[in-house]
Amino acid sequence: MSTFGTYIKVTTAGESHAKGIVAIIDGIPPQISLTEKDIQTQLTRRRPGQSSITTSRDEKDAVQILCGTENGYTLGTPIALLVPNRNIRPLDYKKTNSIPRPGHADYTYQIKYGIRASSGGGRSSARETIARVATGTIVEKWLSERFGIEIVCWVSSGGDIRMPHGRARWTRDEVDSLGTLTALDPASGADYFCEGIFYKSDGTVTNSVDSKWFTDDIIHVRCPDTPTAVKIAHTVKQVKGECDSMGGTVTCVCKNVPTGMGEPCFDKMEALLAHAMLSIPATKGFEIGSGFAGTRLRGSEHNDLFVHKEDGFLKTDTNHAGGTLGGITSGQDIVFRVAVKPVSTIGKAQETLDFEGNATVLEAKGRHDPYVLPRLIPIVESMTALVLGDMAMCQLARSAAILENM
Amino acid sequence: MSTFGTYIKVTTAGESHAKGIVAIIDGIPPQISLTEKDIQTQLTRRRPGQSSITTSRDEKDAVQILCGTENGYTLGTPIALLVPNRNIRPLDYKKTNSIPRPGHADYTYQIKYGIRASSGGGRSSARETIARVATGTIVEKWLSERFGIEIVCWVSSGGDIRMPHGRARWTRDEVDSLGTLTALDPASGADYFCEGIFYKSDGTVTNSVDSKWFTDDIIHVRCPDTPTAVKIAHTVKQVKGECDSMGGTVTCVCKNVPTGMGEPCFDKMEALLAHAMLSIPATKGFEIGSGFAGTRLRGSEHNDLFVHKEDGFLKTDTNHAGGTLGGITSGQDIVFRVAVKPVSTIGKAQETLDFEGNATVLEAKGRHDPYVLPRLIPIVESMTALVLGDMAMCQLARSAAILENM
Amino acid sequence: MSTFGTYIKVTTAGESHAKGIVAIIDGIPPQISLTEKDIQTQLTRRRPGQSSITTSRDEKDAVQILCGTENGYTLGTPIALLVPNRNIRPLDYKKTNSIPRPGHADYTYQIKYGIRASSGGGRSSARETIARVATGTIVEKWLSERFGIEIVCWVSSGGDIRMPHGRARWTRDEVDSLGTLTALDPASGADYFCEGIFYKSDGTVTNSVDSKWFTDDIIHVRCPDTPTAVKIAHTVKQVKGECDSMGGTVTCVCKNVPTGMGEPCFDKMEALLAHAMLSIPATKGFEIGSGFAGTRLRGSEHNDLFVHKEDGFLKTDTNHAGGTLGGITSGQDIVFRVAVKPVSTIGKAQETLDFEGNATVLEAKGRHDPYVLPRLIPIVESMTALVLGDMAMCQLARSAAILENM
Amino acid sequence: MSTFGTYIKVTTAGESHAKGIVAIIDGIPPQISLTEKDIQTQLTRRRPGQSSITTSRDEKDAVQILCGTENGYTLGTPIALLVPNRNIRPLDYKKTNSIPRPGHADYTYQIKYGIRASSGGGRSSARETIARVATGTIVEKWLSERFGIEIVCWVSSGGDIRMPHGRARWTRDEVDSLGTLTALDPASGADYFCEGIFYKSDGTVTNSVDSKWFTDDIIHVRCPDTPTAVKIAHTVKQVKGECDSMGGTVTCVCKNVPTGMGEPCFDKMEALLAHAMLSIPATKGFEIGSGFAGTRLRGSEHNDLFVHKEDGFLKTDTNHAGGTLGGITSGQDIVFRVAVKPVSTIGKAQETLDFEGNATVLEAKGRHDPYVLPRLIPIVESMTALVLGDMAMCQLARSAAILENM
Repeated sequence: MSTFGTYIKVTTAGESHAKGIVAIIDGIPPQISLTEKDIQTQLTRRRPGQSSITTSRDEKDAVQILCGTENGYTLGTPIALLVPNRNIRPLDYKKTNSIPRPGHADYTYQIKYGIRASSGGGRSSARETIARVATGTIVEKWLSERFGIEIVCWVSSGGDIRMPHGRARWTRDEVDSLGTLTALDPASGADYFCEGIFYKSDGTVTNSVDSKWFTDDIIHVRCPDTPTAVKIAHTVKQVKGECDSMGGTVTCVCKNVPTGMGEPCFDKMEALLAHAMLSIPATKGFEIGSGFAGTRLRGSEHNDLFVHKEDGFLKTDTNHAGGTLGGITSGQDIVFRVAVKPVSTIGKAQETLDFEGNATVLEAKGRHDPYVLPRLIPIVESMTALVLGDMAMCQLARSAAILENM
Repeated sequence: MSTFGTYIKVTTAGESHAKGIVAIIDGIPPQISLTEKDIQTQLTRRRPGQSSITTSRDEKDAVQILCGTENGYTLGTPIALLVPNRNIRPLDYKKTNSIPRPGHADYTYQIKYGIRASSGGGRSSARETIARVATGTIVEKWLSERFGIEIVCWVSSGGDIRMPHGRARWTRDEVDSLGTLTALDPASGADYFCEGIFYKSDGTVTNSVDSKWFTDDIIHVRCPDTPTAVKIAHTVKQVKGECDSMGGTVTCVCKNVPTGMGEPCFDKMEALLAHAMLSIPATKGFEIGSGFAGTRLRGSEHNDLFVHKEDGFLKTDTNHAGGTLGGITSGQDIVFRVAVKPVSTIGKAQETLDFEGNATVLEAKGRHDPYVLPRLIPIVESMTALVLGDMAMCQLARSAAILENM
Repeated sequence: MSTFGTYIKVTTAGESHAKGIVAIIDGIPPQISLTEKDIQTQLTRRRPGQSSITTSRDEKDAVQILCGTENGYTLGTPIALLVPNRNIRPLDYKKTNSIPRPGHADYTYQIKYGIRASSGGGRSSARETIARVATGTIVEKWLSERFGIEIVCWVSSGGDIRMPHGRARWTRDEVDSLGTLTALDPASGADYFCEGIFYKSDGTVTNSVDSKWFTDDIIHVRCPDTPTAVKIAHTVKQVKGECDSMGGTVTCVCKNVPTGMGEPCFDKMEALLAHAMLSIPATKGFEIGSGFAGTRLRGSEHNDLFVHKEDGFLKTDTNHAGGTLGGITSGQDIVFRVAVKPVSTIGKAQETLDFEGNATVLEAKGRHDPYVLPRLIPIVESMTALVLGDMAMCQLARSAAILENM
Repeated sequence: MSTFGTYIKVTTAGESHAKGIVAIIDGIPPQISLTEKDIQTQLTRRRPGQSSITTSRDEKDAVQILCGTENGYTLGTPIALLVPNRNIRPLDYKKTNSIPRPGHADYTYQIKYGIRASSGGGRSSARETIARVATGTIVEKWLSERFGIEIVCWVSSGGDIRMPHGRARWTRDEVDSLGTLTALDPASGADYFCEGIFYKSDGTVTNSVDSKWFTDDIIHVRCPDTPTAVKIAHTVKQVKGECDSMGGTVTCVCKNVPTGMGEPCFDKMEALLAHAMLSIPATKGFEIGSGFAGTRLRGSEHNDLFVHKEDGFLKTDTNHAGGTLGGITSGQDIVFRVAVKPVSTIGKAQETLDFEGNATVLEAKGRHDPYVLPRLIPIVESMTALVLGDMAMCQLARSAAILENM
C-alpha cells in the first residue's frame, strides 16, 4: 500500500500525469519550525533537468504545505503536502499504451489492475518519489534538531566505475559541490572543471587549459571523489549519446544515531532500511556494513571488538556491522549501500512484443534519464529519515515508559 | 515489534532460554489440511545438531499446535504453535553476562532495555527463528495447494567459495540430497562421498577409495553443486578447528508465482522480501535478479525483452529483473540472494571490553555454529512464504473486488 | 492517528482554517466509475448553511480529485481528494485563544501539543469530517455496485423528542424529503409545510392556512417522521434563539449486507462500527440492535429465532441482534444508533476560566450550529461505508483463498 | 483479526475446546516486576463457577508465563501466556453441530468459514476473554505503577434493576466485597447477608434472623450498592430456575489518567474504548459521560465549566464529557457504561431451525451462565487497560519528541 511507518506514518498518492503528488505525514511532533522552504531544498536536489546527464524535464516541483502548520510551526496534527504536476506532455507516452516497456511496470500494472494510467506505470513513476522526499525532509529536520543525527548519501559507483575506498564520511555540501562538474570545451585541453581543478575525461588532473573554454554544461554526479565523478560523467555522456542508460550504487551514512533504536525480530533497523530502499524505484539490492563482501570473512575478522568506553557507551574501531547489532543501533555510524539498475525507459530500439503478443520495435520518445543516481541521493536520505524517525519515536516511548527513568 | 504481515499476520515470542518459543499466525484460510507433521519437516531442517558442521545442540524442536485446527483442518481462526525449549544449559552463557560478545546483540539489548536475558541477546537468538519456520511452513503449504507455488532455497557460497553459475532451479530434494556429504576416513583416498561419487577435499572427483573408510560424519551443506559443497564442507571443518566461524550466501527461487502480486510504492514485492530477509539474524545484504552486478549493465542489456505470449501472459527469456516489474510479480521466477555474515559467537579468543569498559579476553564456551547457512535455508524459505502469502491475500481481495470479475 | 482501516485505508489531514481538507484513500478497487460529481452529492448534504437550523457558514466544499482516477475510472492506486477551505474568518475565534471553550477540545489540544491552531480545537473541528464523507462516499459507491448494499441514516430524536417506533427502513430520498420542512408565516395558521401537508409546531396536522404565508426558511431535519420533524424543528428554533444548542440521536440501517463480514475477537463488526461512530465529533454513545434497552430482556425474549431458509441462508423475523452474531454479519439488516451531545460552542454566556485560571465570561461569537444532527447523517453513512468496505475486502480475500472455492 | 493495539499489541488465539488459550503481548516496557501471581488474581475474578449465579464449570484457568520475563521482571520482549483448557466436555455441545443456537455465533461462523469448531462458535466463546484479562492485567499493573491510574468497573444494572445514582467512584475491593452476598436459609427470616447486614430479597434491610441459617451459597454480583445487588441476585436465581438468562450494564471509571491521551480524528480515546468494549462477547452498547441521556440536555447544561486550576491543570465540577474533550483526556475521570445482552445459550426450549432449515426445538444442555455480568467486570477493566496503555505509549513518545521537553 501507499503508507509507510507506524509512529510517524507517511501516506502518498499521485501518478506522474495526475494533477499532483500528494503526501500526508502524521505523527510529526508539534512545535517544530517548518516552512515550505525547509522542504524545497531537498526537493530541488531530486528534480530532473538540473544537469546534462539527467532528464531535461523542468518540473519545478514547488511544494505547498496545505495544513498541519501555523505561523511556521508544526501543530502535531497531520501535515499535508501538495506538489502540483506541470509541464505534462502525455503524448510522449502514447506508444507505451500498446507496447509495454521492457523492464518497466507498464506490463505488471496492466495485469494487476486491468487498467492503467496513460503515463504507463502509474505509481511506479519516479515522480512518486517527490512525496518521499517532501515528507522525509521533515523527519530529517526533527532528527537533526532532536538528536543531532546527520544523514548523508552519495554516489559510490556508476556502471563499473567505482569510487576508491577512502573517507567514510562526507558532508552534504561536499557531496553536492565536489560532485558537481563543469564540462569544458574540448579545445580547452581539459574536459571538466571542479573546485578549481581541471580534469581529463579519464579522471586525471591536467593544468593545460586554453582560454574561452567554459560551457554552460553543469553536471551533477554527487560522487564526492572528483576523479571518479569525472569518469562517471564522461561515461554517462557516452551512454546518453547511445540513447541507453546506466546504473550504479549509492552509499549512505547516518551519524550520531542514538543507541537502542530498532526493534528485535521482524523490525530490525536493517530490515526496515532494506524495506525502505527496495521500495525506491529501480533499486535491486541493499547491504549494510560489510554486506556481501563480509560473507568472505571469518567471524574473528568480522566481529567489531569493543575498544574503548566513551560517555558510558562502548565503542569499536572497525564497523563491519554497519551500525547495528541484533538489529538495534550500537552507536556506531549506520552505513549501507543500495544497488540501482540502469533505467528501463531508453530511446534505443528494443525488439519486444506489444500487449497482444505481436513482435514490434520500441524506441521510447520523450525525456528520460540516462543515469538517475544523482537524483536518488535525496530520496535515499529521505527514506532513511522515515525509518530512523519511526524507530526513534518507538524507542522514545519505551524509554519514557520505564519506571526507573521517571 | 514481533508481528509480521497484514493479511496473514505472524506474531512470535520466546527467548532462547525461556520455557518455549511461541507463535500465533492469524489469517490462514479455513479448510486447509494441517497437522503437526506438516510443520515438523521444515522445523527439523532448521534444527542444529544435524551434522558435524553445525552446533551439536540437539534441541529436538517438537512443535505443538495449541489451537486453530480441528480434526486435521484449519478453522480460519488464529493458529497458536508452541515449541518447548529443552536441553537448556544457562551456565554456558554465564561469562557473557559481564562481557558483551563482539558482533552480537548482548550489548545493544542491554542498552536498549536496561535489562537482558541471561542467555544474552534475548530475541536475537537463532532460536527465535523456530517461530518463523513453523508459521512460514503453514503459509507455504497453502501457497502450494492454492497456486502451485514452489519456494526453494540453497547455499550458493561459503566464504569465498562460490557455486558456479548453472541451473537456476533446484528442487528441495536436490538441495537436501546433493548438499549432504559423508566425510570419509583420510586413509580412504577420498575425503567425501555424495550420491555414489567420491570427492577430494578440493571438490575434484576421485575413484581411488580404500575399504573401511566410512565415518558417521554426515555433513549437510545444502549446496546442490556437489564439488562446491565438498569445498565448503572442507573449509568449514578447518574453521571449526580454529574455533572460528564462516559466512556465505543463499539463493532463493520462487516458481509459479501468479502475476500481479506486490503493492506499488512502499510495499513492492522486493521491498517486503528485503525486509523479511534482513530481519533474519546474521544477514547483511539482499539482492534481487541482477542485484549489485546488474548495476554494471546498460539499460539495453538489463531490460528483459518480451519474447512470447503464453496463456495470456507475456514472457521473457532473460530474468535480470528477478521476477518483478515495478514491485509487482511479472510471472517470471522470483530470484534473490541473501548475504550471511560469519556467526559472531566464536570460541577463538577475542580482546575486547566488558560492560564496565575493562579490557578482557573472551573465549566463548558452549555450543556454537561455525557455519549456519544450511540451517538458514528453511528460514529463508519460510520468510519468503510469509511475504508471498500476505501479498497473495491482498491481491485475491482486489481481484474479487473488481466488478467485472463478479 | 488520522488513518482508518486496513484493507481500504483512509488518511486525512486539515484544520478548519488551513488551506484545505485533504484525504487519501488507498485500496479502492480499480475500474470503478468515479467522478467528483459522485462525491459532491454527499458532501453537499454535510455542508453547513443549508437551512435555518444549522450554521450559516456557506463553505461550498467543492471537492477535487487530485489523482487515482483517469477518464472517470479508478486506477486501483490511491485517490487523493482536496476540499479547499474558503470564507475563513479567523477573527471569530480570537477570544478562544485565551479562553478554552467549555466542552470543547481547545483545552486538551493545548495540553496535548503545547501549541494550538488559531481556530481552536484543530482537528476536532467539524470541518475535518469533510474528508470522511468524501472518502466514505467512494466506498459506498463500490459497496452498492458490488454487493447492492444500501446504507441509510436518519435523525431519530432531537433533545427529548423521539421518533415513534414504526418503519425500520427508509430510503435516502425519504430521509431528505420528508425531513425537509418549509417554515410558514405565523399568520398563516400553520407553522410548517412538508410534502403537501401543513403542521402546527406541536406536530399536529392542520388545514387552516391563510394566503401569502410562505417564507424562504427551509429546514432540513432529516427525520422522516414528519410530525416528529416538525417538533424538532420548532424546538431547535427556540434553542437557537437562546444562543444555546441541542443534541439527539441518529439511527442507521444497512441493507443487503452479505453474511460473513466482520472478524472474530477484536474486530467484530459492531466493534469497528462503534469505533467509527465514537470517532465522529460530538458523539457520546453507540448501540447496536436492542442496545441498552435489550439489557432488560430475558435471553428467551432477546434471541432471534431462525424461522425460514431463503437462498441457502437462515432468516429471523426479529432483529434484536442488529445484524451480527458473534461480531459477524448474519444477513439481517445492520441497525445501530448513535448519541450526539449538544454542540459545545454556544453564544450563551458561560462563567468559566481562561487558560491562566482567571474567572471570565465566555460568549462565543461567530457562526455555530445549534443542532448538528442533520449534518451528521452523511458522516455516519460514510463512516459506516468505510467499516463495511474494509470488512468486505477482508472477507473477499478469505473466500477467494479457500481451496474449495477455486 | 485477533490483534489489538499498536504500541502495546496483544495477539490472542484459542477456541474453547482447543488445548488452551494463548496470548502474546508485545511492547510492555522492560524492568517491570511481573509474576504469574500478578495475573492470576484478575483471571480468577473472570473464572466461572465462583458463585451460584454463574456457570458451574470449574475451569481453574491457571496462567503460565512462557517467555518475556526473567527473575520476575519483564525483559521488554514479547510476553507469551498460556492458559491450558481443562474439564472439557465436548459432548455437551453435540446438538449444536446441527442446530445453530439462536442469538449465537454458531450460524455465522459456519457461513463465514465453511467449517466450525465442535464447540460451536469457536472464537466467539467467553473463554477467549481469558487472553484479554491475562494481558490487560499486565498493562494495568504498568499503568498503576507509572501513572497511578486506577481502573474500576462494577455492575450498575441487572435486567431492569438499576443501581441508584450515588457515589461515582468505588475501589475494586468495595466492588468485590459489597457485591458479594451470602444466600441464607429461607427460614432465617432474611434472604441475604453482606458485610454484617441482613437483607430481604427486595433489597430492604431486616434484623430478624434465626439461627442456623447460613448456606454455602456465595453470590458474586459485583454491584457495590448492596440493596441493588440483593435484588439482582434474587432475580438471577429466578431466571436460572427458568433456564433463561438476563442482561445488564456495567460502569467503568478510570482515575488519575494523565491529560493529553487519545489521538485526534479516528483514534479518539472514546472511539478506542468503544471498539474495545463492543469487541467483548455479548455487548450491545457503549456510552461515555452523559451518553444517551446527554442527548436530551442543552449545550449550556451539558458543557462542563472550568472552575479551578490545580497543579497547572483546569478542573471542572461536572463531568458530562466523561473524561475526554475532542477525544483527548482532560484530566477528569473517564466514565463509561457498557450494555450487555442476556446470554444466548439457554436451557429453555426454543423453536428454531437446524442448518438444513428444518423446524426443530433446541434445549441447550451443558453449563451456561444465566448472568455473565459479574464475570465481565475484569474483562472490561482489562480491555480498558489495553486502550489506555496503547494511548499512553503514543503520548509518551510525543512528549519525549518535543524539542522543548529535552
